Amino acid sequence: MNMDKTGKTGVFFIGASGYIATAVMAGALAIKKGLCDRAGMVTELPAFSGLGLIDPEDMVFGGWDIRPSSPLESAQNYFRNSQLPSEILRQIEGGLIEVSPEICQGVTTNCGKAIESLSSHQTPGREMTLAAQVKKLRKDLSGFRERNSLDCVAVVNLASTEPPLEHRPSHERVDEFEECIAEDRQDEIRASTLYSYAAVLEGCPYLNFTPSNAALLPAIVKLAETKCVPVMGDDGKTGETLVKSALLPMFLYRNLEVLSWEGFNILGNMDGQILNDPENKESKIITKDGIMGKVLGYNPHSRVHIHYVPSLDDQKTAWNFIHFKGFLGTKMSLQFIWQGYDSVLAAPLVLDLVRLSELSNRRSEGGLMKHLASFFKAPQGVDEHRFYEQAEMLFSYASLADIKGAHT
Amino acid sequence: MNMDKTGKTGVFFIGASGYIATAVMAGALAIKKGLCDRAGMVTELPAFSGLGLIDPEDMVFGGWDIRPSSPLESAQNYFRNSQLPSEILRQIEGGLIEVSPEICQGVTTNCGKAIESLSSHQTPGREMTLAAQVKKLRKDLSGFRERNSLDCVAVVNLASTEPPLEHRPSHERVDEFEECIAEDRQDEIRASTLYSYAAVLEGCPYLNFTPSNAALLPAIVKLAETKCVPVMGDDGKTGETLVKSALLPMFLYRNLEVLSWEGFNILGNMDGQILNDPENKESKIITKDGIMGKVLGYNPHSRVHIHYVPSLDDQKTAWNFIHFKGFLGTKMSLQFIWQGYDSVLAAPLVLDLVRLSELSNRRSEGGLMKHLASFFKAPQGVDEHRFYEQAEMLFSYASLADIKGAHT
Amino acid sequence: MNMDKTGKTGVFFIGASGYIATAVMAGALAIKKGLCDRAGMVTELPAFSGLGLIDPEDMVFGGWDIRPSSPLESAQNYFRNSQLPSEILRQIEGGLIEVSPEICQGVTTNCGKAIESLSSHQTPGREMTLAAQVKKLRKDLSGFRERNSLDCVAVVNLASTEPPLEHRPSHERVDEFEECIAEDRQDEIRASTLYSYAAVLEGCPYLNFTPSNAALLPAIVKLAETKCVPVMGDDGKTGETLVKSALLPMFLYRNLEVLSWEGFNILGNMDGQILNDPENKESKIITKDGIMGKVLGYNPHSRVHIHYVPSLDDQKTAWNFIHFKGFLGTKMSLQFIWQGYDSVLAAPLVLDLVRLSELSNRRSEGGLMKHLASFFKAPQGVDEHRFYEQAEMLFSYASLADIKGAHT
Amino acid sequence: MNMDKTGKTGVFFIGASGYIATAVMAGALAIKKGLCDRAGMVTELPAFSGLGLIDPEDMVFGGWDIRPSSPLESAQNYFRNSQLPSEILRQIEGGLIEVSPEICQGVTTNCGKAIESLSSHQTPGREMTLAAQVKKLRKDLSGFRERNSLDCVAVVNLASTEPPLEHRPSHERVDEFEECIAEDRQDEIRASTLYSYAAVLEGCPYLNFTPSNAALLPAIVKLAETKCVPVMGDDGKTGETLVKSALLPMFLYRNLEVLSWEGFNILGNMDGQILNDPENKESKIITKDGIMGKVLGYNPHSRVHIHYVPSLDDQKTAWNFIHFKGFLGTKMSLQFIWQGYDSVLAAPLVLDLVRLSELSNRRSEGGLMKHLASFFKAPQGVDEHRFYEQAEMLFSYASLADIKGAHT
Repeated sequence: MNMDKTGKTGVFFIGASGYIATAVMAGALAIKKGLCDRAGMVTELPAFSGLGLIDPEDMVFGGWDIRPSSPLESAQNYFRNSQLPSEILRQIEGGLIEVSPEICQGVTTNCGKAIESLSSHQTPGREMTLAAQVKKLRKDLSGFRERNSLDCVAVVNLASTEPPLEHRPSHERVDEFEECIAEDRQDEIRASTLYSYAAVLEGCPYLNFTPSNAALLPAIVKLAETKCVPVMGDDGKTGETLVKSALLPMFLYRNLEVLSWEGFNILGNMDGQILNDPENKESKIITKDGIMGKVLGYNPHSRVHIHYVPSLDDQKTAWNFIHFKGFLGTKMSLQFIWQGYDSVLAAPLVLDLVRLSELSNRRSEGGLMKHLASFFKAPQGVDEHRFYEQAEMLFSYASLADIKGAHT
Repeated sequence: MNMDKTGKTGVFFIGASGYIATAVMAGALAIKKGLCDRAGMVTELPAFSGLGLIDPEDMVFGGWDIRPSSPLESAQNYFRNSQLPSEILRQIEGGLIEVSPEICQGVTTNCGKAIESLSSHQTPGREMTLAAQVKKLRKDLSGFRERNSLDCVAVVNLASTEPPLEHRPSHERVDEFEECIAEDRQDEIRASTLYSYAAVLEGCPYLNFTPSNAALLPAIVKLAETKCVPVMGDDGKTGETLVKSALLPMFLYRNLEVLSWEGFNILGNMDGQILNDPENKESKIITKDGIMGKVLGYNPHSRVHIHYVPSLDDQKTAWNFIHFKGFLGTKMSLQFIWQGYDSVLAAPLVLDLVRLSELSNRRSEGGLMKHLASFFKAPQGVDEHRFYEQAEMLFSYASLADIKGAHT
Repeated sequence: MNMDKTGKTGVFFIGASGYIATAVMAGALAIKKGLCDRAGMVTELPAFSGLGLIDPEDMVFGGWDIRPSSPLESAQNYFRNSQLPSEILRQIEGGLIEVSPEICQGVTTNCGKAIESLSSHQTPGREMTLAAQVKKLRKDLSGFRERNSLDCVAVVNLASTEPPLEHRPSHERVDEFEECIAEDRQDEIRASTLYSYAAVLEGCPYLNFTPSNAALLPAIVKLAETKCVPVMGDDGKTGETLVKSALLPMFLYRNLEVLSWEGFNILGNMDGQILNDPENKESKIITKDGIMGKVLGYNPHSRVHIHYVPSLDDQKTAWNFIHFKGFLGTKMSLQFIWQGYDSVLAAPLVLDLVRLSELSNRRSEGGLMKHLASFFKAPQGVDEHRFYEQAEMLFSYASLADIKGAHT
Repeated sequence: MNMDKTGKTGVFFIGASGYIATAVMAGALAIKKGLCDRAGMVTELPAFSGLGLIDPEDMVFGGWDIRPSSPLESAQNYFRNSQLPSEILRQIEGGLIEVSPEICQGVTTNCGKAIESLSSHQTPGREMTLAAQVKKLRKDLSGFRERNSLDCVAVVNLASTEPPLEHRPSHERVDEFEECIAEDRQDEIRASTLYSYAAVLEGCPYLNFTPSNAALLPAIVKLAETKCVPVMGDDGKTGETLVKSALLPMFLYRNLEVLSWEGFNILGNMDGQILNDPENKESKIITKDGIMGKVLGYNPHSRVHIHYVPSLDDQKTAWNFIHFKGFLGTKMSLQFIWQGYDSVLAAPLVLDLVRLSELSNRRSEGGLMKHLASFFKAPQGVDEHRFYEQAEMLFSYASLADIKGAHT
């Protein structure tokens, strides 16, 4: 592979009509037109300036979705619901229309009924074999790459959260996984598995921004190592868990015992609607709640609640109540209330992840990109959950990459 | 000086009748009797286990105050107002009574009217020369040391916050400062200066847990270096500022622009009453608010408000509203509400500071103990305000001290 | 029945070992000794001064419980967990010990497994017929009345919340209900039914402070009317719902559309533990959530969540998020955080209810005491849920009773 | 005067370029075009349907301002800062442009430096006599009325808050007040006095939506009675005080002692900027804080803080901490956080006030419109501060007016 940066980089979304994908595209187009700045993008910090990262202005977008919708319609809906300035929308309409031909029909195999109920009639289901579905997805990717003469296409999973997939022996080894596909054992995988498998086979860096655990199965990660494809996940860390991972070590370092940490999230977007289904919610709660024991070394009473409140639309509101015990046995509390727009928080991180995985791809760093741990609620292959230690891992990677880059 | 740890270490408070000093003494006595654990003490973390720190059970207490009150009376008042278990109080009454003879009359020279109004008739004021006051304070310290056969006496300033002292040339150099004392120029110093000066002259480690900037004047720090006396300050970091210093870098690392950070503190203890005086409050706001620009590199709209609400007594309640801007120009917010007992949070940190300054004293580390930055809102000689970086400084000191200790 | 107030009034609790019953007894004894004031008692307002209400000092206590525990032990446990002053406890110990002989074994028939698991081995269960259980309960009441020479014994249900009881035909008419008892159809009633039935048969005013809907079945209310026994329920309005019923009409009167009202309650006492069982929780959520549609005339998205957080013990913490829409289609929000001790809020209301039902009893006002609506989350026979209108009903009753009283 | 409703009613703003006036005009125009509903308008409740109130669609707008700005520019600025849909703005542009000729130059006599600093060079100041200023203002009003053939012109004070005006003898009697104007004693009045005086002389109903106490001086109110002109104020009750007046009686009726009520307001609009001046802030704090003692009958520790936080613009955020004491001496708390757009909350109330004062004018009800108390923080001539009692006064007026109306 050519080690030089090419002109353009492809970004292919799973869930291309969703709020986050829409915000990524709208944001990149708005940046290009000088309509907004790059606030929220970690890779705009000085630490990353010497890495030769691709620019958001040089990204080309496409993706899959299971609902029939155009990027322009999605953006119109998104801007209205999120009270974003329609002046911006007007000036990026042309750019959004250009993406339309690059939207392909997604798959919903074994996604769970909450997601399946969203999909249109054309969505391939159980009547198509797994192998045929993988072939179709690969063709979508290679077509996109060729039409746009792209060196690198990053695939980003922004689809609705699937229910957790139970562990199976076929998830572990590459050969057994491929056997499972060949034998069309549809119950052992989910749609997200097919996407990630197709991406890795096509040599496309893959990022799992969702909690769906079927996406980066151990076998897929092993295949990515073998094929030298960078991958990472799971579940973008945008709000409540970000604050939690910043605050939690404070109690540890001050030797204050956390008695209880109760988190209550309300949100009203499509994500919230799907998470309203107990099956799907379970995935999210697992990734959100894992942090406590790993950071503290003990497990306080701790729960994360997620509820669907339609009127909030994309404005996630989270109340956290932290009860802790200090000197002389005294109980005290810290509460926080987070009010953030989920897509607005996620979109710049997606741009960061595309930039950094394109770099890893160029530098032939295959397998898990562990230095991206700070971007994820449940970073694969990483035990560190303290936000500042994770950030340190990223800065340290950047400074080493910078030095190495200077030598090439 | 003997490098071995002696049996007992002295702790001499400025403000011995206050809630914090009372909580320190009550806590140490309760630990000795097995009535409470050591929650809140940083030095109980595993990182400090190899340092040979003195034990709270081996501390001997004394101190100055300007109000006539016995440790037992103070504790009775404190336990009642803070709803602490009277079972504990009953079992430590004997220990508190033993401290009584070690309480000396304090000084209030140029302390400001809010503090002066608290003092009893016997408090030395302007009629006594500065030199005479220093002599008296030194005698109090040496008497305490001799009566109790102590190798080391740590002096901890827990007195009410004085108004800020304007910078004077006499604050800079040791010789000019000593001239100022000799010439009895009372307006150029405050009571806190006399205490810290006396402590350093007596070779006593000195800790300024208050925001009073007259305590550790540059000349005093220089004298401490010369005389190899460990000192550190200013202003114990116990609540709102602790949370702030843990959260602030999160916005920086995520490239989210902080637009405004408005902090509103209400409290009802003696600290709150004194801070209700605008002159005294100014000191506190300076130490609380310095952090923003130093961490972020720019100065958002940021203010700290402190108000006296008697019914809260020692239960400090702080509401912080943080307004920030992310992608696509979107404004979002984080709020937190901190409800903590100030003295309960401060007391274990005072025990930590005594332990660590006794160690520094034993190891002949004179001057500013910069590794203690994480304990202070405005750490002298340290530009680092991010809590986790400060904690790292402390852990790193502990690990080095551990190694060095093994070699001696 | 003698219309004059007698010396003493009996108060017989269902759930005599619980926090609320304990707080009622401790409070009444503390008032008698001058150790605390009457804050929180509605009937101490001037509006009630002319009604000749009995005094808390003249109440005699007894009750049932399914756990073996003495009032003194319960109070020791309660004072410790709620950080109440042990000085008070010490002075009322004698009074609590006197109550001991008046504690009887309760029943748990068809209470649900969460409650049954609390009970001791001696608790009568399905092996005893319903008729035999009613007989036993009546004997407990008449024995208490006779031993203490009481004219009036008020029965107050403070037991754990039972699961909701499905409506049956036998609940409607007195004769069919009595048939159900006679035929021992245990599945058609719950323990709370037996208590209320026994109370009414004994002519004892009955107050259902819990959400358990099996207590005041229509047939029981009809029987109370016939026998001229005052009764009322359901579910004491102490915290979140109180605030809700005070705030909700504000949105109505300002023509602001409530979009969502999400309430999240955490608590750690026995009540919280029992409500942690989904079956039992359902009862509570029904009484807490009924208010929205009745006050507003439309049903916004609205849910009440209750979760068990042991470290909070009796300190209920509730966060409510209210989303509303105003002019120009703008969404705005009001949040509130309630931090109150459930038993401390409930206990004075129980004293009020005993006073007012003793008055109704003396005045031969049988059936539902609708003027007590402001005390209950789901007031039987009353459609008014606005707190201030309910309070008006009470004040208006008091002023009429006052006038009538003057004439007798 | 013709008792029949005419086609159109005039609304003349003091502060015509401000957010509230802009929201009123934009809202009325948007309602006319069917672009938004009437949410937030009290007079749209069924209780008011029989009163023959004028319709917002039939209002004609004009007003004074001291800054040179057109209604269209103000609306463009307002819609952008408040993230209101630009689709609405586009469709009402024509209507806003039509208002332009009706904007007159205001006056700033003795307004305080904060407000004066906002005004343009053309603003009449001390060089013009009071009599001449009054004459000019009357001419502005009569010109507006004649040009638009209006029967009734309501004048609404939406200008920035002036500093409080100290009481003077000339404020009491009409003749002495007129003498003060004639003798040009500029220090005894403020600009707001001139506006209200001019309005009353012109027979225009006058509404003081600001806390400025110089507006409705006793002499002006007396003159309004004599001339049969309806007037009312002071200070529109839109947010924090509204919630306070809804919640406060709850504590009273439950006999819970309010220990402290601390309110902390942050906002970033022009109102906030002017209130940042301590002189002007004082007016606001007086009207906001008067309620406690009047409702409770005692004065708890209570303060209202207002601070300017530019990034919030019109989104007022208020945190209130309420500390209260219940049974067994236990302290508990209620906190609320109000996040509302001030202009969005105020604008529909302004439409209500115009409608109701036009009705009073038609019905020849001169002097204070006390039935409008619920709209004001400090209702003149009304001691009732409980919101629900005030609302009752309004509903009761509406029902009587309805009946009377039926007879005429």
